[in-house]
Amino acid sequence: MGSLDTNPTTFPTDVDSFQPLNADDVRSYLHTSVDFICDYYKSVESLPVLPAVEPGYLRRLLQPAPPTSSAPFNVTMKELREAVVPGMTHWASPNFFAFFPSTNSAAGIAGELIASAMNTVGFTWQASPAATEMEVLALDWLAQLLRLPPSFMNRTGAAGRGTGGGVILGTTSEAMLVTLVAARDAALRRSGSSGTMAGITRLTVYAANQTHSTFFKACHLAGFDPANVRSIPTGEETNYALDPAKLLEAMQADIDAGLVPTYVCCTVGTTSSNAVDPVGAVAEAAARFNAWVHVDAAYAGSACICPEFRHHIDGVERLMTCLDCTCLWVRDTHRLTGSLETTPEYLKNSASDSGAVTDLKDMQVGIGRRFRGLKLWMVMRTYGAAKLQEHIRSDVGMAKMFEESVRADERFEVVVPRNFALVCFRIRPHGGGGAMTEEDAEEANRELMERLNKTGKAYLAHTVVGGKFVLRFAVGSSTQEERHVRSAWELIQKTTTEMMKGEI
Amino acid sequence: MGSLDTNPTTFPTDVDSFQPLNADDVRSYLHTSVDFICDYYKSVESLPVLPAVEPGYLRRLLQPAPPTSSAPFNVTMKELREAVVPGMTHWASPNFFAFFPSTNSAAGIAGELIASAMNTVGFTWQASPAATEMEVLALDWLAQLLRLPPSFMNRTGAAGRGTGGGVILGTTSEAMLVTLVAARDAALRRSGSSGTMAGITRLTVYAANQTHSTFFKACHLAGFDPANVRSIPTGEETNYALDPAKLLEAMQADIDAGLVPTYVCCTVGTTSSNAVDPVGAVAEAAARFNAWVHVDAAYAGSACICPEFRHHIDGVERLMTCLDCTCLWVRDTHRLTGSLETTPEYLKNSASDSGAVTDLKDMQVGIGRRFRGLKLWMVMRTYGAAKLQEHIRSDVGMAKMFEESVRADERFEVVVPRNFALVCFRIRPHGGGGAMTEEDAEEANRELMERLNKTGKAYLAHTVVGGKFVLRFAVGSSTQEERHVRSAWELIQKTTTEMMKGEI
Repeated sequence: MGSLDTNPTTFPTDVDSFQPLNADDVRSYLHTSVDFICDYYKSVESLPVLPAVEPGYLRRLLQPAPPTSSAPFNVTMKELREAVVPGMTHWASPNFFAFFPSTNSAAGIAGELIASAMNTVGFTWQASPAATEMEVLALDWLAQLLRLPPSFMNRTGAAGRGTGGGVILGTTSEAMLVTLVAARDAALRRSGSSGTMAGITRLTVYAANQTHSTFFKACHLAGFDPANVRSIPTGEETNYALDPAKLLEAMQADIDAGLVPTYVCCTVGTTSSNAVDPVGAVAEAAARFNAWVHVDAAYAGSACICPEFRHHIDGVERLMTCLDCTCLWVRDTHRLTGSLETTPEYLKNSASDSGAVTDLKDMQVGIGRRFRGLKLWMVMRTYGAAKLQEHIRSDVGMAKMFEESVRADERFEVVVPRNFALVCFRIRPHGGGGAMTEEDAEEANRELMERLNKTGKAYLAHTVVGGKFVLRFAVGSSTQEERHVRSAWELIQKTTTEMMKGEI
Repeated sequence: MGSLDTNPTTFPTDVDSFQPLNADDVRSYLHTSVDFICDYYKSVESLPVLPAVEPGYLRRLLQPAPPTSSAPFNVTMKELREAVVPGMTHWASPNFFAFFPSTNSAAGIAGELIASAMNTVGFTWQASPAATEMEVLALDWLAQLLRLPPSFMNRTGAAGRGTGGGVILGTTSEAMLVTLVAARDAALRRSGSSGTMAGITRLTVYAANQTHSTFFKACHLAGFDPANVRSIPTGEETNYALDPAKLLEAMQADIDAGLVPTYVCCTVGTTSSNAVDPVGAVAEAAARFNAWVHVDAAYAGSACICPEFRHHIDGVERLMTCLDCTCLWVRDTHRLTGSLETTPEYLKNSASDSGAVTDLKDMQVGIGRRFRGLKLWMVMRTYGAAKLQEHIRSDVGMAKMFEESVRADERFEVVVPRNFALVCFRIRPHGGGGAMTEEDAEEANRELMERLNKTGKAYLAHTVVGGKFVLRFAVGSSTQEERHVRSAWELIQKTTTEMMKGEI
């Protein structure tokens, strides 16, 4: 029979073996990495934003097969500096104005670093109480900054816990997908085909044609019929925002045809041109048909922490759900967990059984999850609301000045009114005393973009709005200062002048 | 008309403003974080693995609302140490034996740190050539370590680029979801309902009942009819692995009923008990019906870098797709991109148009993506294949010794044969000279687990296999040494002895 020392001799004494978290390695690799990062930030301004490498360049520089033996960490770092860095598009560069900025901060990186060292997997509350509770707390903090209605919050009030809550997801797409699935299941139940997908071809979803393509992808993933995904036309008259009258009309037509309006995606700050769909009016329309409303504010949501921008999400009180900036809030978490809950035997535990805790695995695509709440909390805790607001205002202020410069140069025009920190502009077809046609203008703007991007001194992307080829100037890279915006504008002017003197 | 200096005065001079990536802050916050991490690893062994906190504990310790003003970083770190750490389940602890280990390494953390500082978004090749090419290279390296057939690799051979390739995704679930959607769309096309979901209720999918619950969740997300998701029973006779004869039978029955077998999920190392579905035989069965085969080796896949474990994935040559350990490989990437591609105007660029590059956004749920390839490459580059193999062997060796100890104590039994580094064991119902019934045994094992976990000196999870309540002892936390396994076994023996002297 067993006792304390039954089989200790079964185990040989420890041998000197590979320790992936050896204290010396951890300390030296990480401090080395921090020094690399500091040098990188120092030099990134002078690196070409868009690298001039050809497809396949990295394979020509690095070994084609994994090494058998280990190498000193400095060898890895040398290859990183010499092979990887020269092929990076530097999103951290102050001269990056493409897409949307990928913002960052010292406290945010620190939070990510600590989370990846702790490497906790918080699928259930029990699997990491602090990770779950931190995520819930950070979302409640952010909800307060955004002045979301309390019905979206996890906070336990005097009257006990409500049904609201949030989750931090990897991408906007995932937030759309999980809410689409929850809305799909609810609509199937409502229309009497619970427990089968037979009714799925009757469900319809709606969004303005300016909505991010990931929405249409998410609809496809969730099995909505391509014929039932309504992309509602927009135009200059609404600055490319969703027209609630057109939405109502489309929903009514579907009802008349025996279909089931299920979900409306409403965007605050479209990717293309920062159009703002009217949340309140859209919610009102959707409510008539019992459809789920999701607000995608992946970009502009954070601006709403400033009171002067908060009106863009007015009407959010009416919602059955949402507001997303990789943070997803819903008014009734049971709508999500009802569709997404899985509880295999090995994840059962008394805390979950008690109903007193949130298991965040049931509000996302997968089961495993990183400790994402930590960095969100560390950013808010360290910088505080005032600095975060100041930062947003500074970005918007720089965009405003850029916009004014564009307006002051008659060769250019601002194509849609600026809402946040994105300026959509172009060389004007008939400006500058010349007689450039629309076609010539497209060609000229494309040429301008390519010339600018080739300099390595700025990187801009383009879009097409209302049939016009437009340059997008997105301010907000976390290393950006006014001098970078000013230099970029000077470069744009100079390049345009050269182009006009030359072939055009 | 514009010239170099048209509007410089539009811009006020730079003011002293909040710089989230200020060089001093970056250096000081990150070095502070590294020191915190080193201290954490040093102390984690002595911290209770499972914390004794009550739901809501964190909210009682931290402020309920975000602060308005900023705080010195040390204040944030103090709250982290005093409020967060005590509520963590320490997955990094050498005394963590629950679920599967969340492995980590100094080079891996360094890779994640650098990637989060660079903060690049590699949705297209152009948006970050190095990030895309590094991901492709790292996957090809790992494919070589796993000796995957070249048809799964991105490598350009003399004959030009093949159709194979891979992508690094966030979770196993995402890998299942994207392949399920691709297989769904292919089956709809095959069965004549291209462009509509009308045929979705005729599509069937298959997996052993031991398959991870996330598979059934992914099927639900992708819109498969609940009635068409076949969970095939398994038993002791196959050690809870999928029986290809039963699979064939189920598929044939569906064909006879006019349904369309679409997808089979085959697991190498199930979560519950590490059962290994026979990849070759499953692939052969699926091929008869043109169904997609996905191999989920989220846990055991990495063991296959050791030649002695490689046979577990024999048959992978036959596959239309797969092998996943957050790394997904497919033999024909067009099958994925055909279902998942989206190209809004602002992502169009000449490199994508040329067809010479991979845009990884089209092989995943979302559009945005982190620079995940860096850490995978840094781990292989720094440690080399030999050390990684040694590490796997060391984990498996420790599990083997634990298994032998269990077998040597007649109060216990090993419930299913051990394949990798997971031992499924329990107090034996009729062992130890007593006359414990099955029901008593379940009670005793549950009691043992709860007592062990309450000590804070070890954390084990449980499962139910073949109706038996079983303890799971998963070796492989990256700080683990033999002495920790030995201590845990001594604790198990001692606790069992106390229990047997006491109430049972």
